[in-house]
Amino acid sequence: MADHLDEFQKFRAELNEEILACGHLGMKRFFALDHQAYEAGALDTKTKELLGLVASAVLRCDDCITYHLVRAAEVGWTRAQVIDALNVALVVGGSITIPHVRRAFARMREVPGLQSEVK
Amino acid sequence: MADHLDEFQKFRAELNEEILACGHLGMKRFFALDHQAYEAGALDTKTKELLGLVASAVLRCDDCITYHLVRAAEVGWTRAQVIDALNVALVVGGSITIPHVRRAFARMREVPGLQSEVK
Amino acid sequence: MADHLDEFQKFRAELNEEILACGHLGMKRFFALDHQAYEAGALDTKTKELLGLVASAVLRCDDCITYHLVRAAEVGWTRAQVIDALNVALVVGGSITIPHVRRAFARMREVPGLQSEVK
Amino acid sequence: MADHLDEFQKFRAELNEEILACGHLGMKRFFALDHQAYEAGALDTKTKELLGLVASAVLRCDDCITYHLVRAAEVGWTRAQVIDALNVALVVGGSITIPHVRRAFARMREVPGLQSEVK
Amino acid sequence: MADHLDEFQKFRAELNEEILACGHLGMKRFFALDHQAYEAGALDTKTKELLGLVASAVLRCDDCITYHLVRAAEVGWTRAQVIDALNVALVVGGSITIPHVRRAFARMREVPGLQSEVK
Amino acid sequence: MADHLDEFQKFRAELNEEILACGHLGMKRFFALDHQAYEAGALDTKTKELLGLVASAVLRCDDCITYHLVRAAEVGWTRAQVIDALNVALVVGGSITIPHVRRAFARMREVPGLQSEVK
Repeated sequence: MADHLDEFQKFRAELNEEILACGHLGMKRFFALDHQAYEAGALDTKTKELLGLVASAVLRCDDCITYHLVRAAEVGWTRAQVIDALNVALVVGGSITIPHVRRAFARMREVPGLQSEVK
Repeated sequence: MADHLDEFQKFRAELNEEILACGHLGMKRFFALDHQAYEAGALDTKTKELLGLVASAVLRCDDCITYHLVRAAEVGWTRAQVIDALNVALVVGGSITIPHVRRAFARMREVPGLQSEVK
Repeated sequence: MADHLDEFQKFRAELNEEILACGHLGMKRFFALDHQAYEAGALDTKTKELLGLVASAVLRCDDCITYHLVRAAEVGWTRAQVIDALNVALVVGGSITIPHVRRAFARMREVPGLQSEVK
Repeated sequence: MADHLDEFQKFRAELNEEILACGHLGMKRFFALDHQAYEAGALDTKTKELLGLVASAVLRCDDCITYHLVRAAEVGWTRAQVIDALNVALVVGGSITIPHVRRAFARMREVPGLQSEVK
Repeated sequence: MADHLDEFQKFRAELNEEILACGHLGMKRFFALDHQAYEAGALDTKTKELLGLVASAVLRCDDCITYHLVRAAEVGWTRAQVIDALNVALVVGGSITIPHVRRAFARMREVPGLQSEVK
Repeated sequence: MADHLDEFQKFRAELNEEILACGHLGMKRFFALDHQAYEAGALDTKTKELLGLVASAVLRCDDCITYHLVRAAEVGWTRAQVIDALNVALVVGGSITIPHVRRAFARMREVPGLQSEVK
């Protein structure tokens, strides 16, 4: 875990801006569609964010996991619930996901609402 | 979609039985752990089944999708909610998941509770 | 290869119609975006179709390969060029893609313009 | 499991022949390299075949699993050893590999040397 | 993006040399075959490099993307064309590829011929 | 390769401890099951460690490769044997695994028993 959460968020914001400004309409639309997928519909946003977290974990994308951990906390999931979701990802995805689960736990130390109470 | 839901379930039940009876303790424990991952904990079973469905869809496993569609209906998710979850999987996993989404829609025709009302 | 090309196309058309009619705006938009990605832009459609074929092959999606083989022939790629593209996919994706390359060759027998001249 | 082992082997042999005869030197060389990877070197062929089986299982390629099950039996691995190797794949690859493990068990019924003694 | 392009290229060159000198003939042949896959055949090198880029993007390999971005510029693809190719990868591979697209955009800042003209 | 082997092992040990202490029984059991999968059974531990290495390589998990390289040396595999196993992974997984093979070679410099004798 070389980077800190704020570095990740700065890089992410800066590059997203560059991509959206690059003039490719398809990419712009994809980013919009990605955003809309988590808006309330037949399912509420809270549930969808957890779906995004587990999808990110089984597909083993650390940046995606970081993004969805932050969002999970924002929409009200607790540390215990996030861990229970990561356990589903661990069982579905197997031991190959363990390094990503480790980095998810390390990342949770930086996410208000997902930090361990034991110090 | 060569097979019908009942053929899938027959094959699945028969082979699971063979695997559990093969004498390998590790496999037996893995199957138990997989089952337990969806039992109520910090998250309820209903939420976890949807996590399992989306994980199966982004990992593009038709049999896993079929299993979780049946379970999703059993625990009370509606067709509209399942489709909304599959949409998260479609956006996360991209157009490469479209054939699996098509087969998921075809499978829903056989799953009570997930069938389209329009005939 | 259980199915024939026309069965695949019938199933694909029928299910795509069902998905587009299911009332989920996000899915409808994704299908439109997927279609637009292959329209002429900075790259022409012909080049993009070959990109789609190789992406499908390394991601090991038989239905996607079938779709892009048909499209590749329609936009004017020859059998030798398609095989040369599949070779890139084979080297990038490794021997795990061989069964998909085999099915691609079997499928090409049904695609006008991609058939072997030797009989 | 739509197909029988002999149908798989017939299709595989026929298509491999077509690919090797198609005139693409790169593909021909890749097939040769793939073959050579399992020849005795610092590791013996027996060990390498088991590596190929586990790689095929975690990458979830049924045809590759079938091929390596047949080879595993030919080089002298027993049913119990093959199952122990599949268990490593199951733990590494997670529950998403279960449908492939089921099909591996079904396939073993057709592979002399890997059949269950209990009937 | 911890590393700079020249660090990547130094590490890549150094390790490739170590691998080619390690005495394993199979690896040496694989590296040769990988190189040959992009040489002109039924398709020209320019087209093949773009296939390599898109394959790398959907398989989510940052180092491979970096390598093919450099090559894409060398064989004459423009920034707009590379972005159009990355858009195909984004749609095929889904939002899970977004972090890799971000890193591709960051990398393009270092690749002559792929830099944004707007400063 | 930003980190050194001892940093990896410190991070791994620290986070594994945090995960095992987090109170989720399912995760604890999964870690135990993962450990048991490599214990002697129908196959011996030495063979299983090589299976774990190749599975990690084709699934392209650098941390998993590092872990299994260390274990491979501990159970007595030589550098030449490990390279022969990585070659199977390279052929099965394709050129997309090359960056991981490079990092595996770089890592072997730090693993007693797997270092090149040539200096």
